[in-house]
Amino acid sequence: MSPDIRRLSDRKRRGEELSAEEIAWLVEAYTAGEIDDAPMAAWLMAVCCAGMTDAETQALTDAMARSGEMLNLACIDAPTVDKHSTGGVGDKITLVAAPIVAACGGCVVKMSGRGLGHTGGTIDKLEAIPGLRTDLTPEELLAQAREVGVAVASQSKALAPADGKMYALRDATGTVDSRALIASSIMSKKLAGGAQAIVLEVTVGSGAFMETVDEGRALAELMVRIGRRAGRCVAALLTDMSRPLGRAVGNAIEVEEAAAVLAGGGPADVREVALAIVSWMLATAGLASGIDEAHEAADEALRSGAAAEKLAALVEAQGGDASALDRALLGHTPAAVGAWGIDREGIVTRMDALGVGRAALATGAGRRCKGGAVDPAAGLRIISVEGERTRAGEPVVEVMASSGEHLQDALVELGAAIIVSERAAEQRPLIIDVLAPEERV
Amino acid sequence: MSPDIRRLSDRKRRGEELSAEEIAWLVEAYTAGEIDDAPMAAWLMAVCCAGMTDAETQALTDAMARSGEMLNLACIDAPTVDKHSTGGVGDKITLVAAPIVAACGGCVVKMSGRGLGHTGGTIDKLEAIPGLRTDLTPEELLAQAREVGVAVASQSKALAPADGKMYALRDATGTVDSRALIASSIMSKKLAGGAQAIVLEVTVGSGAFMETVDEGRALAELMVRIGRRAGRCVAALLTDMSRPLGRAVGNAIEVEEAAAVLAGGGPADVREVALAIVSWMLATAGLASGIDEAHEAADEALRSGAAAEKLAALVEAQGGDASALDRALLGHTPAAVGAWGIDREGIVTRMDALGVGRAALATGAGRRCKGGAVDPAAGLRIISVEGERTRAGEPVVEVMASSGEHLQDALVELGAAIIVSERAAEQRPLIIDVLAPEERV
Repeated sequence: MSPDIRRLSDRKRRGEELSAEEIAWLVEAYTAGEIDDAPMAAWLMAVCCAGMTDAETQALTDAMARSGEMLNLACIDAPTVDKHSTGGVGDKITLVAAPIVAACGGCVVKMSGRGLGHTGGTIDKLEAIPGLRTDLTPEELLAQAREVGVAVASQSKALAPADGKMYALRDATGTVDSRALIASSIMSKKLAGGAQAIVLEVTVGSGAFMETVDEGRALAELMVRIGRRAGRCVAALLTDMSRPLGRAVGNAIEVEEAAAVLAGGGPADVREVALAIVSWMLATAGLASGIDEAHEAADEALRSGAAAEKLAALVEAQGGDASALDRALLGHTPAAVGAWGIDREGIVTRMDALGVGRAALATGAGRRCKGGAVDPAAGLRIISVEGERTRAGEPVVEVMASSGEHLQDALVELGAAIIVSERAAEQRPLIIDVLAPEERV
Repeated sequence: MSPDIRRLSDRKRRGEELSAEEIAWLVEAYTAGEIDDAPMAAWLMAVCCAGMTDAETQALTDAMARSGEMLNLACIDAPTVDKHSTGGVGDKITLVAAPIVAACGGCVVKMSGRGLGHTGGTIDKLEAIPGLRTDLTPEELLAQAREVGVAVASQSKALAPADGKMYALRDATGTVDSRALIASSIMSKKLAGGAQAIVLEVTVGSGAFMETVDEGRALAELMVRIGRRAGRCVAALLTDMSRPLGRAVGNAIEVEEAAAVLAGGGPADVREVALAIVSWMLATAGLASGIDEAHEAADEALRSGAAAEKLAALVEAQGGDASALDRALLGHTPAAVGAWGIDREGIVTRMDALGVGRAALATGAGRRCKGGAVDPAAGLRIISVEGERTRAGEPVVEVMASSGEHLQDALVELGAAIIVSERAAEQRPLIIDVLAPEERV
């Protein structure tokens, strides 16, 4: 006889541990449509309230990972390594890191998401490149990975479909905010993605899902434990997302910045985070004997131009126009442009990531609801980041928007997000902590 | 702008108090179909996990009471008084108490439920009387109440429709077990029912929803507070439901037993509980100056035959054949009969209410799922109750069932429910406590 989900919900909310078999039944029955949304939503809320043990979280992750196809990367000779970030404002790290890893002999087969709300998605950014396709089939993905060493596609519905269905329900029912549910959602997709090594970036701060370092660390540790128990080599980095990353927030403008970093320039903070992620990707994949050696290999891939060539090769392999990478905004023209500044000299004391993310959303660069369109040309170019001086009448942020109205809305949001004063900006480390693969968590 | 139910669920699960306006919006929007089942189920589970404050429970009760018609009893000259029991096995108290109160000058306009699982419903029992209708319109109910002083109808969908919709969702999603939700569900119907005085019976024990006295007391106190804040005069009794009430469990057989009590006979325990409930109904309605005077009035209504006449008048007013009250099983003939006993002499040391309830369900007297039919003729007649001796080969319980198979199932359940030994049965009070109208709870 099948378990009764109502009994499972009741036991869960009383703090009882459910068995792996019970959790597997629940995931399978819900995915098959044998359990309705309402009792599933109640079970999810019971999990949000009472939490789950590691064994339960592991069982949920496994059941979701096994709910559809699992990519088999055995046909790839190079060491396979995946990355995931919990996201942020101006986060274009995948566009920088994946080509560097490929240039260093690793293979990155990455599924990414579209943005929702103030955090952009890698897929939206890539699609700002004229002609580029992200809807690769698993076969296309594997063929490109073998040939180019790197492929980035939108999340396939064939992989971990249980997670897709459960995430949509969580989004509709206010049951997103549970560490166990977040960890199992992310890790089920990573496990189904097949890579042997996984580097997780957990962002922390106003522009991230996790607002405090403690919350971020707990999530990172949980995901590392899940990945290791599933036999993968996993490291995690905790990074600061209280201010935007880099000087570009949007779609085309972020690709432009990523290309600049690969060309040896670009903002120092983007380079620092990207190289840290790359180094741990190379180390977990066994492509470097230590983190210093990994760092040197990454530096060399940048210096030699090999990394930049990998990005161009990825763009062309996915049908995109690689020459667009040399053009400002990839050749897009924004409908309305303007700038935000103040009428006196001062220091940018605070530039809040959440507020800047809201401003980027207001420009038209983000989507307010699922399925909406994003404007590739819209976004923000930050002239003076935290800690830099600005003069009276000079722009602190240049704004590219989908219309005059979007421009005005974005300017209002920027006014709420930025503080210019005579005080120096607070110094915060970009990389808060690293959970190395050998550490016990 | 409307609140977002997801935000309300999130705040609720973090232990925040929601405002009366937020709760009212939620109930109205759900009843109107503007909120889907899944997010509502998540909210209900958040309430199950985090509980509600008195103010929230009051707001929820009020919103559900106001979600449909509210009976206006102003047209009734006699003091109006309602009762509610959280139910049990062999609970036919309404069939005894309501006619006595009417005979003592009170007016009882009662809406009752159908049974589900092992506890029977007053409406199922009344419908065992040939011809009797329970689907009275509010107008018919009021007209009969004015004329006869007592009317018992099935819960009208027009009253507190929000409660009906929410209860069905709770039942389907494992979110039934919350004191605040139980209290507001019961009290919303009582407030919409319009009576000025309300007596609540909270049953405690294996055959009841509340298993412990502490749980029962907490529920009783909460309902009393809600009723008083709504301006009603409310008393509550905690009664024992660890053994069946009386010697009859079923539908026709319980009406037969209720009629026997009204005729001055019947089991002592049914009489004791019924008179206690009646006394508090008369006292809260202002029909007696104290509980002793109320008790005397009730005794007199039984002695004089006035109470028995009120039951007959109720039956006839609702289209039933009152002469059936004089016939065994109201004239019904069970499809299969048998008996459960043991092959030696002993004392009935334990007769578990839940087990006997399951046996009654097995006979065909109850319903396993909503909308199912019940057999009016099926049920149990207890020959030897707890504490009484039984001889070898004599029946302890006579069984009337819908079929031979039902009979066998019932006999198996009885075997698990009854212990016969040489030890005397444990002595437990029937009435555990009374929360009098003037007490602070």
